[in-house]
Amino acid sequence: TSSDYYKKVYNPSTEKVSFSNLDTFARRHIGPTPENVKTMLSTLGYSDLDEFLSKAIPEHILFKRKLKVQPEQGFTESEMLDHLHEIANKNKIVKSYIGKGYAGTKLPPVIQRNLLESPEWYTSYTPYQPEISQGRLESLLNYQTMVTSLTGLDMANASLLDEGTAAGEAMSLSYHNLKGKRSKYVVDTNIHPQTLNVIKSRASNINIEIVELPLSTNEGVLQLEAISNDVCGAIVQYPGTDGSVHDYSRVGEILHSKKALFAMATDLLALTLLKSPAEFGADIALGTSQRFGVPFGYGGPHAAFFATSYKYSRKIPGRIVGVSKDRLGKQALRLALQTREQHIKREKATSNICTSQALLANIAAMYAVYHGPEGLKNIAKRVFGFTTILASQIASHHEIVNTKWFDTLTVKLNGVSADEILAVALHEHNINLFKVDESKVSITLDETVTEQDLDSLIQIFTHGRLDTSQIQELPNLPHEFLRTDPILTNEVFNTHHSETSMLRYLHLLQSKDLSLANSMIPLGSCTMKLNATVEMQTLSIPGFNSIHPFAPIDQAEGYKQLVDEFEKDLNDITGFDATTSMPNSGAQGEYTGLSLIRQYHKSRGDYEKRNICLIPVSAHGTNPASAAMCGLKVVPVKCLENGSIDLQDLTEKAEKHSENLCSIMITYPSTYGLFEPGVKTAIETVHKNGGLVYLDGANMNAQVGLTSPGDLGADVCHLNIHKTFALSHGGGGPGQAPVCVKEHLKPFLPSHHFVKTPHSTKESIESVNSAPYGSASVIPVSYSYIKMLGAQALPYVSTIAMLNANYMLTRLKNDYKIMFVDSHASTNEGLKHCAHEFILDLREFKAVGVEAIDVAKRLQDYGFHAPTMSFPVAGTLMIEPTESENLAELDRFVDALLSIRKEIEAYANNEPLGMVLKNAPHSLEDVVSTPQQDWDARSYTREQAAYPLPYLKTAKCWPTVARLDDTYGDMNLMCTCPSVEEVVETQS
Amino acid sequence: TSSDYYKKVYNPSTEKVSFSNLDTFARRHIGPTPENVKTMLSTLGYSDLDEFLSKAIPEHILFKRKLKVQPEQGFTESEMLDHLHEIANKNKIVKSYIGKGYAGTKLPPVIQRNLLESPEWYTSYTPYQPEISQGRLESLLNYQTMVTSLTGLDMANASLLDEGTAAGEAMSLSYHNLKGKRSKYVVDTNIHPQTLNVIKSRASNINIEIVELPLSTNEGVLQLEAISNDVCGAIVQYPGTDGSVHDYSRVGEILHSKKALFAMATDLLALTLLKSPAEFGADIALGTSQRFGVPFGYGGPHAAFFATSYKYSRKIPGRIVGVSKDRLGKQALRLALQTREQHIKREKATSNICTSQALLANIAAMYAVYHGPEGLKNIAKRVFGFTTILASQIASHHEIVNTKWFDTLTVKLNGVSADEILAVALHEHNINLFKVDESKVSITLDETVTEQDLDSLIQIFTHGRLDTSQIQELPNLPHEFLRTDPILTNEVFNTHHSETSMLRYLHLLQSKDLSLANSMIPLGSCTMKLNATVEMQTLSIPGFNSIHPFAPIDQAEGYKQLVDEFEKDLNDITGFDATTSMPNSGAQGEYTGLSLIRQYHKSRGDYEKRNICLIPVSAHGTNPASAAMCGLKVVPVKCLENGSIDLQDLTEKAEKHSENLCSIMITYPSTYGLFEPGVKTAIETVHKNGGLVYLDGANMNAQVGLTSPGDLGADVCHLNIHKTFALSHGGGGPGQAPVCVKEHLKPFLPSHHFVKTPHSTKESIESVNSAPYGSASVIPVSYSYIKMLGAQALPYVSTIAMLNANYMLTRLKNDYKIMFVDSHASTNEGLKHCAHEFILDLREFKAVGVEAIDVAKRLQDYGFHAPTMSFPVAGTLMIEPTESENLAELDRFVDALLSIRKEIEAYANNEPLGMVLKNAPHSLEDVVSTPQQDWDARSYTREQAAYPLPYLKTAKCWPTVARLDDTYGDMNLMCTCPSVEEVVETQS
Ligand SMILES: Cc1ncc(COP(=O)(O)O)c(C=O)c1O
Ligand SMILES: Cc1ncc(COP(=O)(O)O)c(C=O)c1O
Ligand SMILES: O=C([O-])O
Repeated sequence: TSSDYYKKVYNPSTEKVSFSNLDTFARRHIGPTPENVKTMLSTLGYSDLDEFLSKAIPEHILFKRKLKVQPEQGFTESEMLDHLHEIANKNKIVKSYIGKGYAGTKLPPVIQRNLLESPEWYTSYTPYQPEISQGRLESLLNYQTMVTSLTGLDMANASLLDEGTAAGEAMSLSYHNLKGKRSKYVVDTNIHPQTLNVIKSRASNINIEIVELPLSTNEGVLQLEAISNDVCGAIVQYPGTDGSVHDYSRVGEILHSKKALFAMATDLLALTLLKSPAEFGADIALGTSQRFGVPFGYGGPHAAFFATSYKYSRKIPGRIVGVSKDRLGKQALRLALQTREQHIKREKATSNICTSQALLANIAAMYAVYHGPEGLKNIAKRVFGFTTILASQIASHHEIVNTKWFDTLTVKLNGVSADEILAVALHEHNINLFKVDESKVSITLDETVTEQDLDSLIQIFTHGRLDTSQIQELPNLPHEFLRTDPILTNEVFNTHHSETSMLRYLHLLQSKDLSLANSMIPLGSCTMKLNATVEMQTLSIPGFNSIHPFAPIDQAEGYKQLVDEFEKDLNDITGFDATTSMPNSGAQGEYTGLSLIRQYHKSRGDYEKRNICLIPVSAHGTNPASAAMCGLKVVPVKCLENGSIDLQDLTEKAEKHSENLCSIMITYPSTYGLFEPGVKTAIETVHKNGGLVYLDGANMNAQVGLTSPGDLGADVCHLNIHKTFALSHGGGGPGQAPVCVKEHLKPFLPSHHFVKTPHSTKESIESVNSAPYGSASVIPVSYSYIKMLGAQALPYVSTIAMLNANYMLTRLKNDYKIMFVDSHASTNEGLKHCAHEFILDLREFKAVGVEAIDVAKRLQDYGFHAPTMSFPVAGTLMIEPTESENLAELDRFVDALLSIRKEIEAYANNEPLGMVLKNAPHSLEDVVSTPQQDWDARSYTREQAAYPLPYLKTAKCWPTVARLDDTYGDMNLMCTCPSVEEVVETQS
Repeated sequence: TSSDYYKKVYNPSTEKVSFSNLDTFARRHIGPTPENVKTMLSTLGYSDLDEFLSKAIPEHILFKRKLKVQPEQGFTESEMLDHLHEIANKNKIVKSYIGKGYAGTKLPPVIQRNLLESPEWYTSYTPYQPEISQGRLESLLNYQTMVTSLTGLDMANASLLDEGTAAGEAMSLSYHNLKGKRSKYVVDTNIHPQTLNVIKSRASNINIEIVELPLSTNEGVLQLEAISNDVCGAIVQYPGTDGSVHDYSRVGEILHSKKALFAMATDLLALTLLKSPAEFGADIALGTSQRFGVPFGYGGPHAAFFATSYKYSRKIPGRIVGVSKDRLGKQALRLALQTREQHIKREKATSNICTSQALLANIAAMYAVYHGPEGLKNIAKRVFGFTTILASQIASHHEIVNTKWFDTLTVKLNGVSADEILAVALHEHNINLFKVDESKVSITLDETVTEQDLDSLIQIFTHGRLDTSQIQELPNLPHEFLRTDPILTNEVFNTHHSETSMLRYLHLLQSKDLSLANSMIPLGSCTMKLNATVEMQTLSIPGFNSIHPFAPIDQAEGYKQLVDEFEKDLNDITGFDATTSMPNSGAQGEYTGLSLIRQYHKSRGDYEKRNICLIPVSAHGTNPASAAMCGLKVVPVKCLENGSIDLQDLTEKAEKHSENLCSIMITYPSTYGLFEPGVKTAIETVHKNGGLVYLDGANMNAQVGLTSPGDLGADVCHLNIHKTFALSHGGGGPGQAPVCVKEHLKPFLPSHHFVKTPHSTKESIESVNSAPYGSASVIPVSYSYIKMLGAQALPYVSTIAMLNANYMLTRLKNDYKIMFVDSHASTNEGLKHCAHEFILDLREFKAVGVEAIDVAKRLQDYGFHAPTMSFPVAGTLMIEPTESENLAELDRFVDALLSIRKEIEAYANNEPLGMVLKNAPHSLEDVVSTPQQDWDARSYTREQAAYPLPYLKTAKCWPTVARLDDTYGDMNLMCTCPSVEEVVETQS
């Protein structure tokens, strides 16, 4: 990691032209040039990168184990694309009728190009800064509105990870709603098997007993009634996994009579025609919105939805967009009810969901906007009509098991086995059916089915042909199930049906949001690095996105190769022995990792006893929440003044709980952005007391090629590939979080009901997600990131990420207090420097009336996204620049902060300019429309408000609303699109 | 074309669900819904579309011949994509070493996604309104700067159509520079053959004699000297078409001694290393910038460049971006030197170029920005190094004909024929070489060549293998040709080398421009309709964009099918018998059509005699310019008060010139937007007098399926597919203009030197463009547009385009004078209505001091692009909404104009508000930064300036500079990126 070698890595062809291709990646990915690096090093007082590293990372931590990632010098961009297409071509695209919660769909090209493939949409973070996120907040509000309208319930969140985990959340909500006093949760036998698995996996750790009952039968209902005093809730699937459509009112009545909750897993397309869950008395409706425009992706990413009645509004897991007002009284959106979330409730939180599926929820919402209620109904009618025609044809040869349906038929075969008919379908028609058992198959139809496809299906089952001349009209749904209430009545779903109009709507929303296309997003703990086009292009490759997750594995050889290589590289990078790619978010990774640890203890007969998890007070809120979900008791560990884990406290607690110690969860470098020298001691202490060590990989971007969780001695870690490995954050998801483990945890890696993954063993835990590889189709993004950097450049990523952070720190340290870093330290203990992020301590300004939020909001006026606010320490900002930002951008950001420092001074001195902080951010409308007499009261100019530094006149992303009023929003909760009257009301 | 049938076309599935797929295109393309149409019709006083049409188009014009376009009901979007991929797969992608001005290149993915595939870049028009076009103006300025830096010349334009036409322009400039007094133009024999052909084609019509001389030999130079008194100029190719690099200083000296001009066709990549044309004394340098990131595309589109010394700045053809100031003194860009152009000079113009290749020039410029001077040199060095290694290997088996080279070797074969070696290359290595003659081949290397490719080439020629261990360093260019001056020194070429930085730069520029993603662009005569994503996606399909234009035709079966079907559909739509797809702009189409007419007369022995072209005074400036380029004498025909052609004047002139009448050029509906009833009489009159009729297809969007040039009796027309057929305008190109003809002109359709097109006959005219199908790779865009609408929906495009225009007209007519349309007319003559566009007459406001430009600029404050200004009538605005705009957008635009009408009133009454018109547009910086005391002088508020109507607070595209100062710019001509000092200077 010397400066000289960096020159070579940065530009392999500076000296003499080589035979290799010139479109190398490292110099495109890493912002600072070798000349910049020299400048920055000299600001820090160093002459070489190696020297800097040796001062920044404690010697016993800095392993620099040579990585094995191939090719060592990385693929060039064009080589990467060629290689990826080669892999993708090994996946066989077969027309899928497998169903089970995944259906074919058509992503409208205008949405594909202007949302899925638009960095303005996909590079932004979760909309924590609402004033510069009104675009995607509006789109997510559309999503919520769509879900409430179709389910008939009052409130919906802005997406969950997948149908399985959403069902898990329903169980959890039901359980906690009755304060954990009733331990039985009833699951209808007609639910998707993978959903049942995820429910079971979640139930197992907290001692909920899953009771499977056939709730669509009288018998099942009677059994439910019999145990109802012990039941906290039940879930049914509507339509069922076998395709049947059933009236579940009675189930709802029984549950309600006992104050238990009734949940329905359901299908949004079906709900455009079918009676809504609300009509059956459901308290919770959930499912996937995948078939609203989101490709299969071999399992993901797709957005799950989750809706409830108002009564449970404060218990809904995940993010909820709410309508509020800004400082000037204008209607404005923001994330509502944050008090429910784990960063507040920590181990008392009932859900650990953090990153969800924002980008995919936006696609689904836009799909509904584009089609509108009539368009969606037409699609649904056609699906139902085709299914019914198929049923009538098949019925003359075989038995249709379900008597009612929307899109799925279960067929009991006559004179032919399931295997035989699957073989005919595949080899003669390139069609996948779903095998229910030896004599039954099921068929799920969708939007993509054509007349020819229908004909093929009829051939497979009847050897006859489709004769459309015999069919006058497509059949209609039976009246008893037809919904009669209007759907999607809001203006937004009835306006943008031409492509021109849709394009403008997408563009308008995008233009309200700050993304990486505008400027840096220095969110500490989030690693907002470049999401390269080459990487993101992989999402549009049919060989990756068109495979059903439960397709026969010999049709997914490409994915197998991809996942194998990816997991191998991650093993290498983390210093671990095995990796599972199932978890699809960081929080899911934590949950998985802890479950593995628990399973390890179980295998040694220590499950009941070892139920304590140590967690430093500085940990991210998902850590304690995940631990609680795993049935662990959280024991907090103190931190010292200097930010390090209090090793004495740790030792005391580890020893005290030695009998019961399950694990510790550590983030490294610490959440304070420090390469704590004591980490190895901490790890040893926990091990000594029988616990295992979970390493939260959020800060892996400081480690790659320099040190690793495995080298440090940890047992398991998760990696947020949406942080460290360049998957874009999508405005709040998708994420994907492989979990890497040492050998002794390998036997427990999760299995999957339908797909035999290489990791499944008899000791495997149950699935943590619906799909075997989580959001499989994003894996190529991170895979290509790693492969383009290669073993050679990967360590420079971490090195430059650290250099960038320390450069900013150095430029800021005379004007702001930097937490925990003692730049005058003479020790070689690493605390002279931060790692890849650092914390500005703004608490001293409280005395003069300036809060962290004032600085955060004022940064918007400077065209920047605020750093992470008040995590891990209240009243602070945590800055993480990443390696992708170049020197000019770092300087702009520092200049903004230094300029704000003067404004703080002005405020402290009661100078008029100081008020810019309190009125920040200044929306365009505020600056333009405020009448002069009102403006005069501010005693600073409009120019000072909007263009405090000259660079802003060239480029500025403007807030579109003024500072949000959070209190108003939570007091006047509104989480669906306001009606026209409501808009007028708030505006006036 | 009834309203009822429109409902069916708009939504085939409203009544009952049909078997066909639901992703139909017509409802996505056409803005107004059937309900909107009803509302709009009632505003016009009609109850049915048919009724409206019968009143809007004279009965004898409204043919409504049923179109034959298949499939009749149109492909749906997904069917279209499937079909296109099927066609694309019939093209065989073979690694090309053919060269001849087309080289392989790598389009950096960040540019592909954020420029080529971004509607914000590709949907805008030529930047006639500079205040809302500063982004692409900056990019085009980068292009000019790049060209001047690499050629060493002072000035460059913002692109031409292709290398061949650029060479034609060089000849023309040389000829006119000496006032046409010298008739010989010398062409080096070492020039690309297709370039020679285009030069010849251009020369033939204006009696320039082309003299071919081997100017790299002593003999050739002596011959040049001998005839130099008659020579107006000469052109050489550097490096030559055989690959050789030669010192042409002597040629320059001879020419200059006679005041003749020295032109060089050259290669930008070579120029990063080689001495510049300026060093050899070239007055003109030209060529293609294709290899800077633009795919082959089977011939186009690519941007040609054209540079000269300052001396000829006012003679450069095409558009030039210049640096000027805005009203407030801030540096701002705009199109400079408009006085050179045909819309001013008409038949005295020396070039007809209008639409050029802006989008492709922007790609090339961004390619240079991304790579920077060092990156480009590295690419060039590698190309040269590989070529040299190859030469040294081949030399031991065959003879290398050219002794010096950059990227191309001509090989005289030893013991094997050219055909044999081509066959080996193709069948064993999937490689295309270029066959020079029976015993010679040539090989052109490029950026995409890998070590493996080099190995394959060596195998083909030597049966040996590449042994890199023998090669210590890649060879360097010989010193004598090495350039020593620095290149691309401007900051912009030395800043954006990381993808993050590049993305932000692309995003920044895009955000300064108004495109269809913002709001309607109602440019009359430009038809700014929806460019659907499905259509535009075709540009990224490798099967279409990766074929060399001179690849063996059996490798381009897909293109053959595509072009055949496309031409067949155009024949049907225009009512003609044959179509050529060669011309790549409207002006080129005109030139081609007139050439065909001249050739027709020639075939009848009437060439010399028939040299008069009648052109109505209202014609677009390209018409007379094209006629002049064809050697025709333009005789203007008057128009009547009511806008129609003065039939009496026409008759008189036709009869007077009856002996010499070559043709008439008519635009229909007329440039005034009228369905002139007299058009058939006009056509008959010209025919009667021996002339043929050229119909300018600019207004074809009013005709499709309703009437047609063929039905009207014309002989030939061109179609601007970048208008009528949904190809995006790219901010000033690409265009493509097929020319359709009646049977009697078919034998003359152009041929091509390298590719035998189906149309080539013994009587064919020479090529009008470098490539056989012009910008072939954009044809799929318009092809899919036609195929998705089908015979059924196409007539509704024109019908709704007309309805939209007449609806706006009706809402405006009480407040503005509408030219030529008499809404109270009771005749059925069509003048009660406009066609698809209409003209607002603003001349009455001159009396109170308000000019058309004030209204145009003020529209920017309303978030809109001004309609076409002062064409075809000075002091007016011509509005063309197109069918893609929906009722809401039409209303917004009308509301803006009505609001401006009140501001005019205010100005007339000396009310303070009136000044908004004169200060318009108000840039963001103006509104935000103008100090209050200065603003007070304006006596209207900032809000009135910026948000005159409420919708603007939701969505507004802001001008980034204030009104441009054109005079300053032309007086202080600066057409390259200003240096940092220059920027500072203008800003202060
Ligand atoms: C330290 C830390 N751990 C865990 C998480 C949770 O990851 P995810 O949002 O993917 O669930 C985060 C998220 O930002 C984090 O910063
Ligand atoms: C009436 C008319 N004819 C010809 C042209 C020239 O077409 P092009 O710009 O493609 O050369 C135009 C362009 O606007 C036009 O409006
Ligand atoms: O999203 C986070 O909580 O960092």
